[in-house]
Amino acid sequence: MKIIVDAMGGDHAPGVVVEGAVEAVKEYKEEIVLVGEPSQIEPVLKRFEYPKDKIFIYPARETILMHELPAISVRKKKGSSIVVGINLIKELKGDAFFSAGNTGAVVCAASMDLGLLPGVERPGIALVIPTIKGISLIIDVGANINPKPLHLLQYGIMGSAYLESIFNKPQPTVGLLNVGEEETKGTDFVKETYDLLSKSNLNFIGNIEGKSIFSGKCDVIVCDGFVGNVALKVMEGAVETMQFFLKRYLLKTSLKGKIGFFLIKDTFSKFKKDLNYAEYGGATLLGVNGVVIIGHGRSNARAVKNAIRVAIEEVKRKINQRIIEAITHLKK
Amino acid sequence: MKIIVDAMGGDHAPGVVVEGAVEAVKEYKEEIVLVGEPSQIEPVLKRFEYPKDKIFIYPARETILMHELPAISVRKKKGSSIVVGINLIKELKGDAFFSAGNTGAVVCAASMDLGLLPGVERPGIALVIPTIKGISLIIDVGANINPKPLHLLQYGIMGSAYLESIFNKPQPTVGLLNVGEEETKGTDFVKETYDLLSKSNLNFIGNIEGKSIFSGKCDVIVCDGFVGNVALKVMEGAVETMQFFLKRYLLKTSLKGKIGFFLIKDTFSKFKKDLNYAEYGGATLLGVNGVVIIGHGRSNARAVKNAIRVAIEEVKRKINQRIIEAITHLKK
Repeated sequence: MKIIVDAMGGDHAPGVVVEGAVEAVKEYKEEIVLVGEPSQIEPVLKRFEYPKDKIFIYPARETILMHELPAISVRKKKGSSIVVGINLIKELKGDAFFSAGNTGAVVCAASMDLGLLPGVERPGIALVIPTIKGISLIIDVGANINPKPLHLLQYGIMGSAYLESIFNKPQPTVGLLNVGEEETKGTDFVKETYDLLSKSNLNFIGNIEGKSIFSGKCDVIVCDGFVGNVALKVMEGAVETMQFFLKRYLLKTSLKGKIGFFLIKDTFSKFKKDLNYAEYGGATLLGVNGVVIIGHGRSNARAVKNAIRVAIEEVKRKINQRIIEAITHLKK
Repeated sequence: MKIIVDAMGGDHAPGVVVEGAVEAVKEYKEEIVLVGEPSQIEPVLKRFEYPKDKIFIYPARETILMHELPAISVRKKKGSSIVVGINLIKELKGDAFFSAGNTGAVVCAASMDLGLLPGVERPGIALVIPTIKGISLIIDVGANINPKPLHLLQYGIMGSAYLESIFNKPQPTVGLLNVGEEETKGTDFVKETYDLLSKSNLNFIGNIEGKSIFSGKCDVIVCDGFVGNVALKVMEGAVETMQFFLKRYLLKTSLKGKIGFFLIKDTFSKFKKDLNYAEYGGATLLGVNGVVIIGHGRSNARAVKNAIRVAIEEVKRKINQRIIEAITHLKK
């Protein structure tokens, strides 16, 4: 198996990407192709010990920056690590693609160059999140900010297929993110989606509210990409803010709190880092004809390594075949 | 001044509402009218010492339950504590109304019976949240889930007037909640709103992402009620989940973590409670012709007391007059 990695993507590229790739090769023994500017990748790679027959560099002279407009940059920068990397998948020179770069550009390049799976109308970004009961999957967190109800139904199908396939979860429960639990709540868009989900053969449990996302109340949470993106970033912000407040609170209240804070400090930092994408490693762009993993811009080496593990797992479990079957068998 | 309080609203009514009202009367010395079923309010009230000339009971024989449909329940239950309470404001028998009951019903009764302020097209629920730099205000968190761009512009105006008036914050900065910071990001709805905000005389700083809500990056965060409601509830859920994970993390890692956890436990619980609405006490329904405060269903006595303090403050500062002026002077 060969995993194509965008060496230029992310806030700390190529450093942490190369480091994560080296760790992944050592641990998972699959081949990795680092796509990007060789003169930037080589010096980093030289710092590490690694099996020379497992890591390759594939040159890409351009880089799409984090804030470039996705559609325009993908069209104009044909030589960018994202476009070149996606094309390696298309030409079957690799089995999966990972990038911690410009999310919109990855979505755009993957949708245009790989195309969508048969029957799928729009791709969605699926993110696995930790919950009190284990893990849940939220889809879409930003690929498609103007979806139709049918797209959300398909997200439910793809998300369920994902959890069945990757996490061996039989008949995952599906919930619709809404402003209240009652069937009557929400916009016309959400009500139409509710209707489609109810009539499908998914294990649909109804609406769920934002506060239940982490409770493990359902396995798959479907939502439109705008709402999902805001929700995801609010979670990120909440974790950071909590640490700030907790520190201030503990330091100002009592001696007990002060001592407690110094005792928990290291664990808290580790905990925060773990929640922050690194544990699971990345989000999967579901619905495109290829395995595409998107990492957080702030990914560290561990997050990159874990994202590569996820990519390997998805290839092994033939996730896209499972999705095609599920979409085909959909009770209309 | 006379504050009208829905004694039957909230998960722990009338108990915590009456208790909070008694505390508020003692601390703020204003009169309070408890609206609801006297046979349920009286026994609770008897348990407390309070100035008898400051707390009154106004009978309302019906109660709108938390999960009843707002528009229908308000129309059918004319004798409910919410409808009766709002009518006391309308008849100028009280200066402000507080309820921790069915939010939709309060919004509906207030909009219909009090009407909107001149020039205001839709009311919005404004919530003051703690941030790293102090406080910010987010509007709308659920009054209007199908807004037009003009409504969001008006939320920006009302939110700014609120912070100027209640928190003495001159020229508050306004940000638009979006999936990215660039002007080009988001749905057509958000882009149109961006355009309106840019052309207004508000201190508009552009788009902000979900992770920046708590950073104090801007004073007023405007968003549609669907997104705002999800964001708010994600925050709530995140705080609870964080506590759960932190505990598990600390208890499983090291002896240091275990001891640390037991030292911070009490402070953490207090911190969680404080974040949970109680500190500021409630959200304000801005845009209606009256001062209306909405509490969280889970409000405790302290949250009720603080919500009453907010109501008193808003009446004193003539918040609605400020909003009328701001809406009138809006540069179109």
